[in-house]
Amino acid sequence: MSVLQVAVIGASGYSGEELLRLLTRHPHCNVSIITSRQHAEKPVGEVFPRFADEILCFTAPDIEQIKATCDVVFLALPHGLATEFAIPLLNSGLTVIDISADFRLNSPDKYQIYYNEPHPAPELLEQAVYGLPERYRAKIVESNLIACAGCYPTSIILPTSPLLESGLASPEKIVVSSMSGVSGAGRKVDLPYIFPECNESVRAYAPCGHRHLPEIEQELALAAGIAEVTMNFIPHLVPVNRGINSTIILDALPGATLEKIGDVLNNAYGNEKFVRVLPHGKLPDTKHITLTNVCEIGYTLDSHTGKIILVSCIDNLTKGASGQAVQNMNIRFGFDEATGLC
Amino acid sequence: MSVLQVAVIGASGYSGEELLRLLTRHPHCNVSIITSRQHAEKPVGEVFPRFADEILCFTAPDIEQIKATCDVVFLALPHGLATEFAIPLLNSGLTVIDISADFRLNSPDKYQIYYNEPHPAPELLEQAVYGLPERYRAKIVESNLIACAGCYPTSIILPTSPLLESGLASPEKIVVSSMSGVSGAGRKVDLPYIFPECNESVRAYAPCGHRHLPEIEQELALAAGIAEVTMNFIPHLVPVNRGINSTIILDALPGATLEKIGDVLNNAYGNEKFVRVLPHGKLPDTKHITLTNVCEIGYTLDSHTGKIILVSCIDNLTKGASGQAVQNMNIRFGFDEATGLC
Amino acid sequence: MSVLQVAVIGASGYSGEELLRLLTRHPHCNVSIITSRQHAEKPVGEVFPRFADEILCFTAPDIEQIKATCDVVFLALPHGLATEFAIPLLNSGLTVIDISADFRLNSPDKYQIYYNEPHPAPELLEQAVYGLPERYRAKIVESNLIACAGCYPTSIILPTSPLLESGLASPEKIVVSSMSGVSGAGRKVDLPYIFPECNESVRAYAPCGHRHLPEIEQELALAAGIAEVTMNFIPHLVPVNRGINSTIILDALPGATLEKIGDVLNNAYGNEKFVRVLPHGKLPDTKHITLTNVCEIGYTLDSHTGKIILVSCIDNLTKGASGQAVQNMNIRFGFDEATGLC
Amino acid sequence: MSVLQVAVIGASGYSGEELLRLLTRHPHCNVSIITSRQHAEKPVGEVFPRFADEILCFTAPDIEQIKATCDVVFLALPHGLATEFAIPLLNSGLTVIDISADFRLNSPDKYQIYYNEPHPAPELLEQAVYGLPERYRAKIVESNLIACAGCYPTSIILPTSPLLESGLASPEKIVVSSMSGVSGAGRKVDLPYIFPECNESVRAYAPCGHRHLPEIEQELALAAGIAEVTMNFIPHLVPVNRGINSTIILDALPGATLEKIGDVLNNAYGNEKFVRVLPHGKLPDTKHITLTNVCEIGYTLDSHTGKIILVSCIDNLTKGASGQAVQNMNIRFGFDEATGLC
Repeated sequence: MSVLQVAVIGASGYSGEELLRLLTRHPHCNVSIITSRQHAEKPVGEVFPRFADEILCFTAPDIEQIKATCDVVFLALPHGLATEFAIPLLNSGLTVIDISADFRLNSPDKYQIYYNEPHPAPELLEQAVYGLPERYRAKIVESNLIACAGCYPTSIILPTSPLLESGLASPEKIVVSSMSGVSGAGRKVDLPYIFPECNESVRAYAPCGHRHLPEIEQELALAAGIAEVTMNFIPHLVPVNRGINSTIILDALPGATLEKIGDVLNNAYGNEKFVRVLPHGKLPDTKHITLTNVCEIGYTLDSHTGKIILVSCIDNLTKGASGQAVQNMNIRFGFDEATGLC
Repeated sequence: MSVLQVAVIGASGYSGEELLRLLTRHPHCNVSIITSRQHAEKPVGEVFPRFADEILCFTAPDIEQIKATCDVVFLALPHGLATEFAIPLLNSGLTVIDISADFRLNSPDKYQIYYNEPHPAPELLEQAVYGLPERYRAKIVESNLIACAGCYPTSIILPTSPLLESGLASPEKIVVSSMSGVSGAGRKVDLPYIFPECNESVRAYAPCGHRHLPEIEQELALAAGIAEVTMNFIPHLVPVNRGINSTIILDALPGATLEKIGDVLNNAYGNEKFVRVLPHGKLPDTKHITLTNVCEIGYTLDSHTGKIILVSCIDNLTKGASGQAVQNMNIRFGFDEATGLC
Repeated sequence: MSVLQVAVIGASGYSGEELLRLLTRHPHCNVSIITSRQHAEKPVGEVFPRFADEILCFTAPDIEQIKATCDVVFLALPHGLATEFAIPLLNSGLTVIDISADFRLNSPDKYQIYYNEPHPAPELLEQAVYGLPERYRAKIVESNLIACAGCYPTSIILPTSPLLESGLASPEKIVVSSMSGVSGAGRKVDLPYIFPECNESVRAYAPCGHRHLPEIEQELALAAGIAEVTMNFIPHLVPVNRGINSTIILDALPGATLEKIGDVLNNAYGNEKFVRVLPHGKLPDTKHITLTNVCEIGYTLDSHTGKIILVSCIDNLTKGASGQAVQNMNIRFGFDEATGLC
Repeated sequence: MSVLQVAVIGASGYSGEELLRLLTRHPHCNVSIITSRQHAEKPVGEVFPRFADEILCFTAPDIEQIKATCDVVFLALPHGLATEFAIPLLNSGLTVIDISADFRLNSPDKYQIYYNEPHPAPELLEQAVYGLPERYRAKIVESNLIACAGCYPTSIILPTSPLLESGLASPEKIVVSSMSGVSGAGRKVDLPYIFPECNESVRAYAPCGHRHLPEIEQELALAAGIAEVTMNFIPHLVPVNRGINSTIILDALPGATLEKIGDVLNNAYGNEKFVRVLPHGKLPDTKHITLTNVCEIGYTLDSHTGKIILVSCIDNLTKGASGQAVQNMNIRFGFDEATGLC
């Protein structure tokens, strides 16, 4: 099988590091370009000592060189900047796999509300596919612009969507409480993220209007077959490096039984390599899935309140970012979906 | 001022250790008896090296000796066992401050449902006062049986009750997601609690029917002035030693505004030494309150969904157990409420 | 290439889990038997949820079945018990890769001193090879009894041996201070290892006579070409899951310069896949090597005191146990040494 | 008893926070001035939310105001800057308790070597007393310039000095390996100190020439009664918030026995409130002493190598900085030494 030439743009954060970890051992990829303005000309091992033995060097990004030599480009850039790179690369026929938020929302209006600026290329939104493989596999095969699902959204959309589709759960009054490890904030050098401020600390943040909210609402509305979902999503920061736990509380609809809920989840994901529905009575734990591309899902029906409770765990850097990006690449290029991910 | 003679019964766990930390520096207490069957005859410093310099020794519990020499007894015992000690001590006129769950529920039926056995002394339930000082101060002064509020319940009842009383929040469809440090499981030697199983781990547990649920529902129903509250409470274990964060999602009722919510909380707690209502825009953090008796509360109104969101933090061993017990003792015996707690 | 049939005996601890992680993705291995008396008949995924998707089941150990069906057997057993299994398996011509301490010491007398009982099979000690590939590769190829080096010893012998061999460092008055993560204590359910006792804790233990000491002294004496090394080794427990840091202080001998020290280390390990000598000025960090089979080494020469200072980091479960075991298997069976380890 | 008027200069770091925690509950102190250029005019509770309920506000430092209103000034400033403040305050007769390194070294030459600049006020060095109460109590009573001992030095000088004085241990070839929590780096916003870089990480740093080395050598030479001690001190960073463990390896001199070592330590510290010598067989643990002013010491004699091994633990922010500063103040002003520290 031929080998893809791969560029990783903006690889200086934790998602970039995780991408490199996965891509450098992927049998069908050759990472030929790794860019970082900040670290240009440094060996990758100087920034990420785990890669000290790999012969890799950061360069400043050079669009012409990427166009001339690469097949697929991963964008690990801040929102807005990702679009600047995506446009010329798409025009040259490359496949763009974007880890930023630029192409996840179908609605440029929502983008404007949550990102406080007009979408930089609304005409590309129709062309983009939402890069959540278990939901959009067929479209991912055919798209050159794959907008990888966000970390919190992945942990929420995967467990919730089948229950909305099945009619067992109501799309109204959904409440989600999530907890994320600190790598979710990026490799950000800021007072709230230094060790003594995070260790022995648990705290909620952005309880209203987190930027991942419209993405979650969009996908849950599509699953429910309705125009809008309006819900609560409250994230918390907890002192682990990696891992997201999402606890989702849904109104059960008439006819929902524990057995049916289990059937719906198992039917949806029984054949999925990267979604593990636990038997009833077991709940997920982030430590079961860190450094894997797996989303672990537990469920129950609370007869006391009539609520369906779903709990999911993912690794925010793997299934929540870079592992999912590689899974999307595997699908797009016809590789076995798990290549390089086990 | 005279000095109280104090006994601590069952002091071998983390709540017992925290009680000793607080009581040994309390100016009006003399801890004359500390019991532990398991550690009888050992110096306290052998079990809790922090107390190596104190001249204290565990003894096997001896009711007659306690009756003969003590004024007040703290029970840090498993549920059920606490009642066995409480009965004779109450009969002898001592004040019993119980950290177990035995006397928190008004209804023996609820006790039977959640503890799987009949209440061992239902006739005492009427005599007991729920030991949450900010809510029951007047009754605590007069009672010889103080059932200290549980850790999760304290973190939930304090922020929620004033909003139910005010009519700004609905007592229906309340959802609470809480996260607790591992000391909340006690000094329990069991596989799920060893370091490598808890560190780098986030997990939900007991999502339906946790034993603290009926206690929370009881107190929120009393605050709302209705017969029953039926709600969701989902706890999580996170890798910190101490601290609980509770995130509470309430339906706002007509007339609720951000300003009114703030007013209600500030009016309720503006003069409370141990409740700190944060200005809107700030959220609590367990690290702000560990090793203190403070409950920190943040609030917001989500205009997107019409929900009131409350977030609270307490130290599960201090305000959630032993600090609250000392606060109750201070009230009962007419000391300044903060004595020994700052 | 043909596929080896592999048995893992005593796989219920963290080393066993790590072995399974590595072997289940090894292209030339088929793990056909996994034994655990404690967990017999349970699916592996019930004990280690990471393996929930693998179709594996614990069995009680059955020597006849192993002899009939396997080529290579990994022993992850307590010392003493390992020998009981090794004897019949060796007699049947299988290759035994032992993670316990039973065959590491050349001297049965030393075994008796440090393990408080006579060696159970002293006649096997000559047949055994010390399973530290970078030092004993040639012998490992030819041996059916490979005694994998211990975790602390690996972290100390690798950096120190070349300097003793070179004559730049003295084998006298060696001092080593090591820090290990809690998984090094095994999956042990005991009070000192529960989360609140380890988190926010740093402590020395076994400062004299740790069981790894004679193994370290034996190998350093062999490297120095002398009969005995007598040294200090002081381990500490620190609150991380995985990782060992060893800081080694050696007397520099006449002629030792910073450049020569670097040359000796780089010459020794420049071609080694799993030893990374850092450039002078950089020091290792456990986080660079967790979940890898790499030993990272830093060095300096302290002109103030005339000491050579070496610092090394390994993952105690990978290079310190199961990764090294797999590396030894790869060597023994002629596979590329890094197979299944990157 | 009259109340001291106290100023804390440069209170924006973790030592400053710890000072405020201790001083605000000290019965004989009134903290009337708290300065921070960075935070001037902000309420202290905005910077350190634990103090939200105290009515305190940062101001820009104003020497004239301090001179006019304060009795004692704590300097929690970077080295060099501390001297600028100390000079005018001393000239006005105030007592200066300095947490910086400016006045710890007797030798301005050593200062120049380790701090890369000439000492800013060498004439003050003779006037300064080294602020380690258990060693210099008599001088502290009489001095207006108290240079509080550093954190690592305190953990090393306390256990080691009595053994050097006694002649049981040699002052030659001392080796110390220390581990510190991350608050020891200050409230520093820098990549190596963000949570994901420290958590699950153990690493050595500054293995030669750490700035605390000359301070340790100076005091150990004084204890040994010799001109110079030349030793190794190797610090490590471990993922805890607070706490230092120092493991000290000394050559035993003829006549040293386990019993004599214990006697020497117990004689030295048997009456000390803040030094706890453990019985032989027990070793210290940082978790026993965090948030206390106690130095816990364990000892053993390694008959295998003839080394005395001492292990000590302190809280780097309390006994290692601010608690010691308060202890020094108590001594200087004739209060009970433990006032405000238990």
